[in-house]
Amino acid sequence: MEDPVVQKLRAAMKAERFDALVAHSLDNATYTAGFQVPSHAQNRFRRTITVLAGDDFGCQVVVNVEEALAREKSRFKDIRSYNQFTDNPADVLADALIESGAGEGRVALELDYLPAMDFLRLQERLPKAMFVHACDLYFRVRMVKTDEEMATLKRIGTLTEQVVGEVISDLRPGVSERKVGAEIMSRMLAAGADAVSYQVGSGFRSGIINCKPTDKLVETGDVVRIEVLGDKDGYRSNVTRTVVMGKPTDEQKQIWSVLIAARDRCEAMLKPGTPVPDLWNTYLSACRSGGIEPSLKFLGHGIGRTIHEEPYLTETRAIVLAPGVTHTMEPLYMVPGRMGFHVEDMYRITKDGFEKLTGHLVPNDQLIEVAA
Amino acid sequence: MEDPVVQKLRAAMKAERFDALVAHSLDNATYTAGFQVPSHAQNRFRRTITVLAGDDFGCQVVVNVEEALAREKSRFKDIRSYNQFTDNPADVLADALIESGAGEGRVALELDYLPAMDFLRLQERLPKAMFVHACDLYFRVRMVKTDEEMATLKRIGTLTEQVVGEVISDLRPGVSERKVGAEIMSRMLAAGADAVSYQVGSGFRSGIINCKPTDKLVETGDVVRIEVLGDKDGYRSNVTRTVVMGKPTDEQKQIWSVLIAARDRCEAMLKPGTPVPDLWNTYLSACRSGGIEPSLKFLGHGIGRTIHEEPYLTETRAIVLAPGVTHTMEPLYMVPGRMGFHVEDMYRITKDGFEKLTGHLVPNDQLIEVAA
Repeated sequence: MEDPVVQKLRAAMKAERFDALVAHSLDNATYTAGFQVPSHAQNRFRRTITVLAGDDFGCQVVVNVEEALAREKSRFKDIRSYNQFTDNPADVLADALIESGAGEGRVALELDYLPAMDFLRLQERLPKAMFVHACDLYFRVRMVKTDEEMATLKRIGTLTEQVVGEVISDLRPGVSERKVGAEIMSRMLAAGADAVSYQVGSGFRSGIINCKPTDKLVETGDVVRIEVLGDKDGYRSNVTRTVVMGKPTDEQKQIWSVLIAARDRCEAMLKPGTPVPDLWNTYLSACRSGGIEPSLKFLGHGIGRTIHEEPYLTETRAIVLAPGVTHTMEPLYMVPGRMGFHVEDMYRITKDGFEKLTGHLVPNDQLIEVAA
Repeated sequence: MEDPVVQKLRAAMKAERFDALVAHSLDNATYTAGFQVPSHAQNRFRRTITVLAGDDFGCQVVVNVEEALAREKSRFKDIRSYNQFTDNPADVLADALIESGAGEGRVALELDYLPAMDFLRLQERLPKAMFVHACDLYFRVRMVKTDEEMATLKRIGTLTEQVVGEVISDLRPGVSERKVGAEIMSRMLAAGADAVSYQVGSGFRSGIINCKPTDKLVETGDVVRIEVLGDKDGYRSNVTRTVVMGKPTDEQKQIWSVLIAARDRCEAMLKPGTPVPDLWNTYLSACRSGGIEPSLKFLGHGIGRTIHEEPYLTETRAIVLAPGVTHTMEPLYMVPGRMGFHVEDMYRITKDGFEKLTGHLVPNDQLIEVAA
C-alpha cells in the first residue's frame, strides 16, 4: 500500500493525463519522498529528484553521498544515485523516465524550478516527450493535508505559540531586540524545533515589515511585534503577537479593534465552500470601514512544508476552501515611521468549519500589555 | 567609481566577450548587488536578478515589496521592480537587456539555476540573443576575495572559533548533544552571528558524517565532534574540533596524528602557484602511508558567501592557488559505528604563503581532552 501522499499525487497525475510526475524542488521532492535529503537545501548543485510514473513506478534520485540515508528514510525503495562531479543527474532522470515507459509521454516537471541546463539535456535525451509545468498540481495536492501532516503542523504550531508566550512573559524595557530574538531561538530549539526564524521590531521598528532584530532596546511605550516561524519534522509554523510596553493609547486600541473585528468576520467564514477571494474582500472592506488600509495584499497564506504556499488569501486566487486545507490569517497594519500591529495564527478547515491550530495559549484578541 | 566586486565582474565579463552578465541565484545576485534581498532565500517564486552590461549598465530586479529596501542597500542605483502575482520578472529582465544594448548579444546566465520557464520566456523575447552558461565565471571571480570580504570572513571565523572554544570548555559528561547544539546557537547569536548551523556527534555518532544533534548524552570516553557554521553580513564560517571525554586511547592518538601530519604537509604547500590537485594528492598519500583512508573525497572547500564554493580541494579541480583565495582544510576520518575525527579551519592565500583565518584560539593540533 503506497503512502497516502504518493497515492494523492499519483491520482492527480492520472487525472491530468500525465505519464510521469517529476519534482526537483526542496519542498516538492521532500513532500513526495517523505524525507529531506540533508544537502538538498544547502547545495544547489546537488539535485534531488523524485519520479512517479504510471500505476506503480516510483524512484528517487540522490547524490551518492546521501544514498545510504535515502535507502533508510525514503518512501521509495528504488533509489538511484549519481556522482556530483562526474555524472549528470538529468541523465539519471532521463533513464528513469525511459525505463518507466514515460520517455515519449507527457511529463510534468517544475519548469519554474528545474534549471534551464537540465531542461535542455532532457529535451536532447527525450526528444519525443512533452514537458508540461507541474507546479499547480503540486500546490493543489499539498494544500489538503493528510492526518499525519495535520498532527505535525499542530505540534509545531503549539510549540511555537508556547515559546511566544514565554518570551512575552519575560519581556521588560531595556532588553535589546537581538536578545529577545536569541531567547526565541534558544527556547524553540530546546523545545525541539529543528530550525527557527523570527522577527522582533520595537517602537518605530514594529512598523517595518521585515524587522530583523537589532541592538535597539525595547522601551516603555513601545509597540513590540514578535513573529516566530518554526520548523519541525519538515513542517512549518507561523505565529505573531503584538505587545504594548505599558498602557495602549486610544489610537492603538482603535487600530487593534478594527483588525480583530475584520479577522473575526473572516473566521466566521472559514468552512468548506468559501471562495478565498471572499475572505480577502470581507477583510478589506471591514478594515476600510474601520478607517485603515491593510499593509499587505493578502490576509494569510497556506502553511505546510513551506511557509508560503497555497491558498494565499487574496483576491487573485480561484481557490475554494475544503476540508484539510491549512493556512494562517495575519491582519497587519503599519503606521510607517511610528508603529505596526500584527497578529497571526494557524487554522485548518474541517468538515463543517475550522479548527484553530494556534490561538489557544497566548491572547490574540486584545493588545497584550506588558508592565513597563 | 564602481565597487571592486562589480569592477571585477565587469572585467571578467569583457574578457570572455560577453555583452551582459546576469545572476539569479542567491549567492551570485547577492554578491553582485552587495546586499541580500530578504525574501530571496525564503521564497523561490520571487526572483531577484542582477544585470551588468557593457561599460556602465547595471541594474537589479526585485519584487515590489522589497523595492524600498533595495533602493537603500543595493550597489545599483537602477532598481526595477515587479508584482509577484501579475508581472513576469523574465520580462523585466528582457527589457533591461534590450535597453542595455545586449538584447541581441552574448548573454551570460546561470543556466544551472535559471528556471526553465524563465529561459523559455527569454528565448521568446530575445530570439537573436545567445545565452551562455555563466557559473564558472562567477566561481572564478568569487574565489579571490576583496579586502573587505576578507575582513568580514575573518570576523565571522574568529567569532565562530571563540564560541567553539567556550562550548568545549563547558562540555561535561551527562549533557545531551541537543543541549550542546542549543548552546552553540545561543552563543553564536549573542556574539552577533546572523544565522548558525552546527553538528554535534558524540560516541559512535561522531562517526556519522552529517551528525545532527540528538538527545543522546555525552558520556565519559566518548569522542565528540563539534562543527559550527556561521553566517554574518552575508559571509560564512566553518570551524570543527574533536574532543575526547577523558584520556584518548592509543588508537585514537594514532589516527589523530596521521590526520594532523597530513594537514601540516598540506599547510606547507599553501601559497600562490600550488595546483589544488597537488594538495589533495599530498593529503591522500600522507593519510594512506599512515594507514587510514580519508572519509571525504576532498580536503576542504572554498568559503565566502557560501559554505561550499571553489576551490574544492580535490583532484578534479584544475585550479591553482592565488593571493586572495579563501578556503578550509578539514581532514576527516570515520571509524563507522565507533567514532570519528575531524578538524577544520579557514585559510587565506597571501602574496607569498598563507594566513590562518582561524586556528589561533582553540588548539587544532592535538586531540582536545576534556576532564570526564
